[in-house]
Amino acid sequence: MSTVKYVLSEDRIPKVWYNIQADLPEPAPPVLHPGTGPPIGPDDLAPLFPMQLIVQEVSTEKFIEIPDPVRDIYRQWRPTPLFRARRLEKALDTPARIYYKFEGISPVGSHKPNTAVAQAFYNKEEGVKRLATETGAGQWGSSLAMACAFFGLDCDVFMVRVSYEQKPYRRGLIEAFGASVTPSPSNKTNAGRAILAQDPDSRGSLGIAISEAVEVAASDPNTKYSLGSVLNHVLLHQTVIGQEALEQFEMADDYPDVVIACAGGGSNFAGLAFPFVGKNLRGEAGSRIVAVEPAACPTLTKGTYAYDFGDTAHLTPMVKMHTLGSSFMPPAIHAGGLRYHGMAPLVSHLFELGAIEATTVHQTDAFAAGIQFARAEGIIPAPESNHAVAQAITEALKCKEEGVSRSIVFNLSGHGHFDMQAYMDYAQNKLKDYDYPVEAVEAALAGLPNVDA
Amino acid sequence: MSTVKYVLSEDRIPKVWYNIQADLPEPAPPVLHPGTGPPIGPDDLAPLFPMQLIVQEVSTEKFIEIPDPVRDIYRQWRPTPLFRARRLEKALDTPARIYYKFEGISPVGSHKPNTAVAQAFYNKEEGVKRLATETGAGQWGSSLAMACAFFGLDCDVFMVRVSYEQKPYRRGLIEAFGASVTPSPSNKTNAGRAILAQDPDSRGSLGIAISEAVEVAASDPNTKYSLGSVLNHVLLHQTVIGQEALEQFEMADDYPDVVIACAGGGSNFAGLAFPFVGKNLRGEAGSRIVAVEPAACPTLTKGTYAYDFGDTAHLTPMVKMHTLGSSFMPPAIHAGGLRYHGMAPLVSHLFELGAIEATTVHQTDAFAAGIQFARAEGIIPAPESNHAVAQAITEALKCKEEGVSRSIVFNLSGHGHFDMQAYMDYAQNKLKDYDYPVEAVEAALAGLPNVDA
Repeated sequence: MSTVKYVLSEDRIPKVWYNIQADLPEPAPPVLHPGTGPPIGPDDLAPLFPMQLIVQEVSTEKFIEIPDPVRDIYRQWRPTPLFRARRLEKALDTPARIYYKFEGISPVGSHKPNTAVAQAFYNKEEGVKRLATETGAGQWGSSLAMACAFFGLDCDVFMVRVSYEQKPYRRGLIEAFGASVTPSPSNKTNAGRAILAQDPDSRGSLGIAISEAVEVAASDPNTKYSLGSVLNHVLLHQTVIGQEALEQFEMADDYPDVVIACAGGGSNFAGLAFPFVGKNLRGEAGSRIVAVEPAACPTLTKGTYAYDFGDTAHLTPMVKMHTLGSSFMPPAIHAGGLRYHGMAPLVSHLFELGAIEATTVHQTDAFAAGIQFARAEGIIPAPESNHAVAQAITEALKCKEEGVSRSIVFNLSGHGHFDMQAYMDYAQNKLKDYDYPVEAVEAALAGLPNVDA
Repeated sequence: MSTVKYVLSEDRIPKVWYNIQADLPEPAPPVLHPGTGPPIGPDDLAPLFPMQLIVQEVSTEKFIEIPDPVRDIYRQWRPTPLFRARRLEKALDTPARIYYKFEGISPVGSHKPNTAVAQAFYNKEEGVKRLATETGAGQWGSSLAMACAFFGLDCDVFMVRVSYEQKPYRRGLIEAFGASVTPSPSNKTNAGRAILAQDPDSRGSLGIAISEAVEVAASDPNTKYSLGSVLNHVLLHQTVIGQEALEQFEMADDYPDVVIACAGGGSNFAGLAFPFVGKNLRGEAGSRIVAVEPAACPTLTKGTYAYDFGDTAHLTPMVKMHTLGSSFMPPAIHAGGLRYHGMAPLVSHLFELGAIEATTVHQTDAFAAGIQFARAEGIIPAPESNHAVAQAITEALKCKEEGVSRSIVFNLSGHGHFDMQAYMDYAQNKLKDYDYPVEAVEAALAGLPNVDA
């Protein structure tokens, strides 16, 4: 009894992205202008994004065609395999059927290229010369750097300083692709200088790095901004994951009772989950859909649903989302990709609608699950993905307790080959578990903009 | 025009390993007993290896069946893709058709699990409880650790001290799979203690680490030894690579004029090349077959073809191979997997027969090629694989010069996600090029055992 792999042929790479906005029972609240308050239009976003992405951001078309050059590049690693984790099932002695979709097979080892390639393509089409972006642990930065290398675009990456210093190897990968990397906060932008004036030793946050990248893009007509999560068009591009998984479940003659993914900004979660959520919303299925957050940064589970800024310096538009406050600095957990004060507006909206659940996992429990998974399945997961692994194991053990066989699928959004220091720290009992700092969150939430649509 | 992927369905994972010994025009010279000199028999190897592997070591059957449990595990990442590197071809502006077989898609990121899984299986079948092995940069150690986790075997890895200290992250991976890692030379063995007595600061070598692992296995009836390259059965297991490539070239309606792989101990080279060499030997094809060595450790190109020991302490049998002398300590290049004093006897024999060519590449040229490849194809190669990439680019540029289109295939034996320090050192001009130290090699060769079969 070994791990089973469900492989789709290349012609089954989705030809369209699935837009969940078409299936929402009520539309998500509008995006508001950062300075003036009223809902923004496409022109307000034009300094930051190419028009095709702005159109996707607000589209309610159910399917949006994937351009051939993007699909051609997807072809290098897509369709990604769906595995049935038979060896893990056996190790857990569970009647559950555990599946995982493995996005770590992409050249940079995560799901992020699904949108990076699309974003680089549309920017290139519209004559953009350079993209500016932020990155935490570097999964996103390395993906966009790769995509920019493919399309001949320059790429400037603002990397959260704590990761820049502690995780130099993803920085090395970003630079190998020819992109430039700046530790954030930096002296290159007003936003960065303002933070450094307050705190010269600031270790940075995704919110600050976003401010810096947005400022760079807004101040240069040849440069646009690129974001690796949160926005509707980013989540849209990731839906190739879930669409493939739907086909692979047909091959397996099964359907998931529970769909699980970790959630930081929301992109890998949306990528796997939205096509399944869509089936639920259309009354075609009834899976439980579970977003897993770190206990240290529990945006959906403990945040407020309100209008907030995407960044620290309040340069971005305001979006209605679950937030811990844009000035909140999450504790230094190793899952850098989950250290964000907000949650994608579409994910937040679905949570408010009761269409999805959310739960939290502490980081030592996440790493324990990752080790157990690696010994059974051979793949060492990224620290972010470990949160999904932990929840899948919890659900599988519940099946064992109850004596029922349920079908569980989770998104193994990336491999952990760049994250071995975290595993070594875990093995030496050096990892701390953090609960979210209640007072700091309360202070950050007190600063929320007092607006509603 | 983008990268093209040739994917075989899972039922096309080879059902057999290809044994080139069946097609040799003359057999390879016999293995000699380390103490007594005459050719060894199966019983002499029994303390180190399970009988099934000993049988494979000397077999002249053309095909050896792959056991189902091994094939079941292969299924997780095999068949690996064969890519046509269209974007690299375009970047080089070459009429050459460049293909690469990508083994970095395995859970640990290299070709090594192809034999690790087989070796763990046969040992488990014969009741062995523990495997002892050596590792350089850690590709092999992590692969065997994974395979041992799958089969419930203990695993002791002696890791060359310089890598243990400079490359902690593959050590972390080995430990994550539950194996124990000891820096070599160590105080755990007579072989290690003897080296440390001579040089307390010894940074180790593969030859020393092999001595330690062999000693541990020989002194415990429940422990056997496992080697990641050099031996006939190890090369045999890797032939799944080339067999798949042959089928994939049929899909591509092409056939390689040039087959390229890097060569340290010889296993990834043999894996891709032997099925093509077999076609040549049987008069069915006429590809050039090129082994690429580091200029710092040019075993085939500068070594002597003679009987030598596989290890430093002379505990292993003597094999006839191209060697730089078993006491030779190769310069500290980053391609740890190519830092071995000898070359697989079968590869050496084929070189003597004129069936294969060999060439060398300096490490900065190898890294330059790796960067060029990464920017075109998205995958950052392992430092070892960069030697093959460099040679493929050289061949492709020769095509351009000559205005001819040839088909070139190389083995991309692993990804470089664990090797970013080397890339960062390269980017900062910190990497040195080494030629092989002529005097040190002459001294080591002077110590060769004075025997012949």
